[in-house]
Amino acid sequence: MFKITSESKLARCGEFKTAHGKIKTPFYMPVVTKGAGKFLTFNSLENLKTQCFISNAYLLYLKPGLETIKKANGYHNFINWQKPIFTDSGGFQLLDPEFLISLNDKGVKFRSPFSGEVHFISPEKLMENQNILGSDVAMVLDHVMGPDHNKKEFSEATTRTIAWAKRCLDSHKNKNQKVFGIVQGGTYKDLRKECALAINDMGFDGLAIGGLAIGEEKDKMYKAIDYSLEYLDKDKIKYLMGVGSPEDLVKSIGKGVDCFDSIYPTKMARHGVIFTRNGVLKIGKSYNAHIFKPIEKECDCYACKHHTIAYLHHLYRLDEAAAKILLSEHNVRFMHRLVEDARKAIEEGKYEQFQKKFLKDYLKNK
Amino acid sequence: MFKITSESKLARCGEFKTAHGKIKTPFYMPVVTKGAGKFLTFNSLENLKTQCFISNAYLLYLKPGLETIKKANGYHNFINWQKPIFTDSGGFQLLDPEFLISLNDKGVKFRSPFSGEVHFISPEKLMENQNILGSDVAMVLDHVMGPDHNKKEFSEATTRTIAWAKRCLDSHKNKNQKVFGIVQGGTYKDLRKECALAINDMGFDGLAIGGLAIGEEKDKMYKAIDYSLEYLDKDKIKYLMGVGSPEDLVKSIGKGVDCFDSIYPTKMARHGVIFTRNGVLKIGKSYNAHIFKPIEKECDCYACKHHTIAYLHHLYRLDEAAAKILLSEHNVRFMHRLVEDARKAIEEGKYEQFQKKFLKDYLKNK
Repeated sequence: MFKITSESKLARCGEFKTAHGKIKTPFYMPVVTKGAGKFLTFNSLENLKTQCFISNAYLLYLKPGLETIKKANGYHNFINWQKPIFTDSGGFQLLDPEFLISLNDKGVKFRSPFSGEVHFISPEKLMENQNILGSDVAMVLDHVMGPDHNKKEFSEATTRTIAWAKRCLDSHKNKNQKVFGIVQGGTYKDLRKECALAINDMGFDGLAIGGLAIGEEKDKMYKAIDYSLEYLDKDKIKYLMGVGSPEDLVKSIGKGVDCFDSIYPTKMARHGVIFTRNGVLKIGKSYNAHIFKPIEKECDCYACKHHTIAYLHHLYRLDEAAAKILLSEHNVRFMHRLVEDARKAIEEGKYEQFQKKFLKDYLKNK
Repeated sequence: MFKITSESKLARCGEFKTAHGKIKTPFYMPVVTKGAGKFLTFNSLENLKTQCFISNAYLLYLKPGLETIKKANGYHNFINWQKPIFTDSGGFQLLDPEFLISLNDKGVKFRSPFSGEVHFISPEKLMENQNILGSDVAMVLDHVMGPDHNKKEFSEATTRTIAWAKRCLDSHKNKNQKVFGIVQGGTYKDLRKECALAINDMGFDGLAIGGLAIGEEKDKMYKAIDYSLEYLDKDKIKYLMGVGSPEDLVKSIGKGVDCFDSIYPTKMARHGVIFTRNGVLKIGKSYNAHIFKPIEKECDCYACKHHTIAYLHHLYRLDEAAAKILLSEHNVRFMHRLVEDARKAIEEGKYEQFQKKFLKDYLKNK
């Protein structure tokens, strides 16, 4: 199901086979939380050559709800996207005090952001929901915690995450759907090790590293990735959840990570922070008003092929929705092009040089 | 420059030649006020087969400003749209008390909605601005007044509109840019006649009917159109400004109108009012949640080709930008398809039947 096709030191290229086709790894997934990307239609995602995206099983369970999904013959048909889809447990929502009511070993009690209604999700219930959604990859329920907790709390959350992972796997019956386990443990070396060893042994189709890029320091994040990766089977696909920025992707691919999702590229785009190989471009700055060249001449997104920085600056300053559309498209396409180039570098056995050059160019103005 | 190619009673098909190519008439122009449609990129407009749109010369003069437009070699190049563009004087803005400071025979003093700065526009200055913008069709400065004024005020505004039209024409030098005169006169038969006769005699490239669809009663609007058309040369292209709804287009084409612009289709789309040949569909209504068929199976917009009413309902209820994009695209494409079908009916000499059938189907649930 996952086949490594090239390696360049720890970085690797591969193919990940799902019920809706193969994904070339490494890859970046845009976030399509509730059935559409923010300011991105599926028309955009097709044009951007998106291979796969991730949706939120919690929120889809609430809206449109599983009855609608069943009537539509699954989530793929409801949204009419016939390529691979991941669904996340929504563990990330546990960080939101408006959402989380309480949590114990049985599962999670939470409040619908749409209706205020109270719902309960157990590991078994979550797997059943994802089974009905029919995503290609279902993530287990995990206990995500922000960095402002003590070690005892992280230890309990890790123990719970391990127990929930086992229950998710045991209750999962759908042969067409892969299941990924998630390593938690905050930034603690021993907890990451404990969790990674336990999750690794359970026989998941893929292995995810979660609970990062949520406020911890950057160097601690990288160490936590290392602590986790060390105990995970090399041959399994590795997914670093919620990460992130172009430099994070490039560095993590260098460590052997294969898969990423993040709202960062689209969120930045909506705030006028535009990715280029020579660092970020702040489109709203006045000095862009008379720059009559594209954001990146090498980029094949609509904005780069058809528009100048001056025009996009004009739209952004006027807060036109078209700016958010065009700039979100660019940043997503930037991420896809980045992993496409990373794959090429790995195939040529030159990933280290690629990483070095990318980071030098991208961070030179920082 | 305008050639009538087919007629079906008063309705007619033709070709209107501009510096950026021919436009098939009748046609509908989406509104691209400040350099982008609302939730519509030029990528969308191209896909929707938009022939031409209208932008606002007042607002473009303020932002990005004429210096930027000059540096970009004109508005077409600034936005990179190489097909015909109309620019409106912005007479419509005179209805906005936030915008208009004062007005007399010399011109208009108004406040920038961006900076609060005060600007003065004379007929001559407006033509110079539109000349710099380089639009294919420049509209004259006219005195637009809402229906809550008395006849004396309308009479003065009509006299002013006529005087301004003459000054616009006299100061216009750009051979590549067509100039359209505008008939005002509220809903008064004698004022419309006076204005139409005067404007008609000046030798404009096209003749517009303005000051309608701004709050007056529907039957008064139709009468005012008739009062104006009666005194305008049959052979000249006729533009009904700011109108409007699908039924208004169909009825007005039946009277001999060739050209329309309106924000109505996109504004309605953003409010969930979706055009179909069988009347409007209110996408937000709960009964749409399980309708797994397209808005219109005959429509070739992305939403109709790829998505169901149920999916669009879901996005709309979640207030996703993707809903506004997809539904705006549909309503604009609906307008373009409507005039395409109108042209076909005129060519076949069957416009009357087309109009009758369209209105029967479109209004049957009203």
